[in-house]
Amino acid sequence: MTIPGQLNVSPRLLLGPGPSDVHPRVLTVMATPLIGHFDPQFLVLMGETQEMLRQALFTKNSLTFPVSGTGMSGMETCLMNLIEPGDKVVVCLNGFFSLRMADIAGRNGAQLTTIESPWGQIFELDRLREVLTKVKPKVLAIVQAETSTGAWQPLEGLGKLCHENDTLLVVDAVTSLGCVPVHMDAWEIDAIYSCTQKGLSCPPGLAPVSFSQRAVDAINRRKTKVPSWYLDRTLVQRYWTEDRFYHHTAPITMTYAIREGLRIVLEEGLQARWDRHMVNHRALKAGLTALGIEYSAAEGHQLPQLNAVKVPAGADDVPFRKMLLTEFGIEIGGGLGDFKGKVWRIGLIGHNSRPSSVLLVLAALEKCLLSQSVKIPAGAGVAAAERAYAGK
Amino acid sequence: MTIPGQLNVSPRLLLGPGPSDVHPRVLTVMATPLIGHFDPQFLVLMGETQEMLRQALFTKNSLTFPVSGTGMSGMETCLMNLIEPGDKVVVCLNGFFSLRMADIAGRNGAQLTTIESPWGQIFELDRLREVLTKVKPKVLAIVQAETSTGAWQPLEGLGKLCHENDTLLVVDAVTSLGCVPVHMDAWEIDAIYSCTQKGLSCPPGLAPVSFSQRAVDAINRRKTKVPSWYLDRTLVQRYWTEDRFYHHTAPITMTYAIREGLRIVLEEGLQARWDRHMVNHRALKAGLTALGIEYSAAEGHQLPQLNAVKVPAGADDVPFRKMLLTEFGIEIGGGLGDFKGKVWRIGLIGHNSRPSSVLLVLAALEKCLLSQSVKIPAGAGVAAAERAYAGK
Repeated sequence: MTIPGQLNVSPRLLLGPGPSDVHPRVLTVMATPLIGHFDPQFLVLMGETQEMLRQALFTKNSLTFPVSGTGMSGMETCLMNLIEPGDKVVVCLNGFFSLRMADIAGRNGAQLTTIESPWGQIFELDRLREVLTKVKPKVLAIVQAETSTGAWQPLEGLGKLCHENDTLLVVDAVTSLGCVPVHMDAWEIDAIYSCTQKGLSCPPGLAPVSFSQRAVDAINRRKTKVPSWYLDRTLVQRYWTEDRFYHHTAPITMTYAIREGLRIVLEEGLQARWDRHMVNHRALKAGLTALGIEYSAAEGHQLPQLNAVKVPAGADDVPFRKMLLTEFGIEIGGGLGDFKGKVWRIGLIGHNSRPSSVLLVLAALEKCLLSQSVKIPAGAGVAAAERAYAGK
Repeated sequence: MTIPGQLNVSPRLLLGPGPSDVHPRVLTVMATPLIGHFDPQFLVLMGETQEMLRQALFTKNSLTFPVSGTGMSGMETCLMNLIEPGDKVVVCLNGFFSLRMADIAGRNGAQLTTIESPWGQIFELDRLREVLTKVKPKVLAIVQAETSTGAWQPLEGLGKLCHENDTLLVVDAVTSLGCVPVHMDAWEIDAIYSCTQKGLSCPPGLAPVSFSQRAVDAINRRKTKVPSWYLDRTLVQRYWTEDRFYHHTAPITMTYAIREGLRIVLEEGLQARWDRHMVNHRALKAGLTALGIEYSAAEGHQLPQLNAVKVPAGADDVPFRKMLLTEFGIEIGGGLGDFKGKVWRIGLIGHNSRPSSVLLVLAALEKCLLSQSVKIPAGAGVAAAERAYAGK
């Protein structure tokens, strides 16, 4: 056979829903030679990674570690370990990723109740109280930052409400960690999962998870084995937190990466990082609004790191995004599920949330819209963003 | 909190059971910035990776791709997709990893039959024929290269025998791929899994798998959903082989890595690579034998890439391996399970199977044995290996 040539990918600016660009410092550590996964030095790196994850999640949970898979393996780890056949589970549906939670709950034999909000909308606390008191589920699962719609679900008060009803709160923080506040302990979240390729500015490949003591107790009371050996928390825990019992070979290079990504997050500081995401979001939004482009998520509940907007009338989705990619090297996301062809998702995530991304993507959007003969006030987007940065 | 310092690991030579040292060319590509997981360029890289995997496994199977997890996720993917509750499964137990196959089969509701050989021994075809005709299982699972014992299971003829009994053959190739022959199609293997951190000289993080048409047909006849959404082959397949439907975000950097690792394997050629592993194994074995160190696997069934040997009388296992690591930066493996404290596992895997590894590890073993006052003929190990290389 012909052997393919050397790796030769084009430079890209990843402004979609994720993966986002990896921080250069993270790329550099990934070229570091391996040490063994039981090397005393590696055990130190594991401990440091766990401790930094706790800081980033604002939790003291002992059981906090990265699952050796992508973000979706984190979703499955949280749900599969907590749910046994016949358990009552409520999943809050308002986008693509909550649908997956429902699928996974179903595979695990849950007695499933779903409540729905339109895509782009959130769930009010009163509505959640109602379903909790009516169903009294073992688990309620909800997405904090819905990657398909850009909707930002508030979580304050929900954990307390869950616990009053003897319910465990599971939160999807895939697109929120490192971008907007995640206060695991203060909000009384029982199980959370995230990923590496978004707010932590690392490549995809690990899924940070954390379980509260309440969740650990629930898992310890299981009557049946977790269906997946690979994702069984009781086994993985022995490798990450107790006697370093061999479970599987940790993804060593990705552990180097997440450790460096977390160092960068903590050096900047969480509050400063959240503020930065908000400043750049406001500038982008000012620019998009000046171009007549509307957000698809409800006003007041729009994620700063994931700007889901309606494809403007007259624009042709697929060729448009292709032009952005080939002429500017910029990737933005198309719509998922119900939003396919109707929505663009512009990510300003982690390392990529910076003025140069905002100004370039606005300029490039203008250029591509004009080339599709969409009527926009040329130059207005960049100008509006610049005014926003100047505080005008 | 105090933020940990910059990554600063010691240089190591990884001569354990794996992870093995990553090839420098693989490390280099891992510092490449990301492209998106739906970027047209990434889809090309995926296709090239799949085609090279097929070459390395000597298969034409369409369903051949790397699972987004470590080798153990490959084991679970193969077994979980093929087994439904009540299915008859035979697992051949002769080491640590076959025990795990049995655990996973049990979690999936298999009606499990196990046959046992002593650790370090293999299974003869006659014995396998007997259990196949008696049990008529849906699946027979066996380990080609048992990482805990160094035993090399012959597979010729077994697939044919399985198919005569309407049984699917599942093979663990975690420690064999890239080191010794794996002829998936010629040997009529129905599902196989491996890893990246051994014979492919990449970091851990992906699990190459391949399914025969017979296996795919069996999965398509399932009456129940696969318990794990993440490892459900029918979903992953749509991302890797059909309409590129979004399932999860591929570990992009690890895909760069495995693609480069496979390029290196194919540039060398599989036959040349197997030969190289054998030449270095023979030199190491000559050296160990000259030092009075015995293999734990049966003569004639010893893996060239994983030399499991009995800890010599008088040597103190844990301090010995610690001395090797701190004084020479060399990692070798200790025993697992029944072999804990009794066995050392010396890997000459992938990139690390070379004369410099052999001579250095022999010299270092001699030095450490002498420092523990174990009686050995000093210098005899290195000399014997040199004679073996010289063909004397």
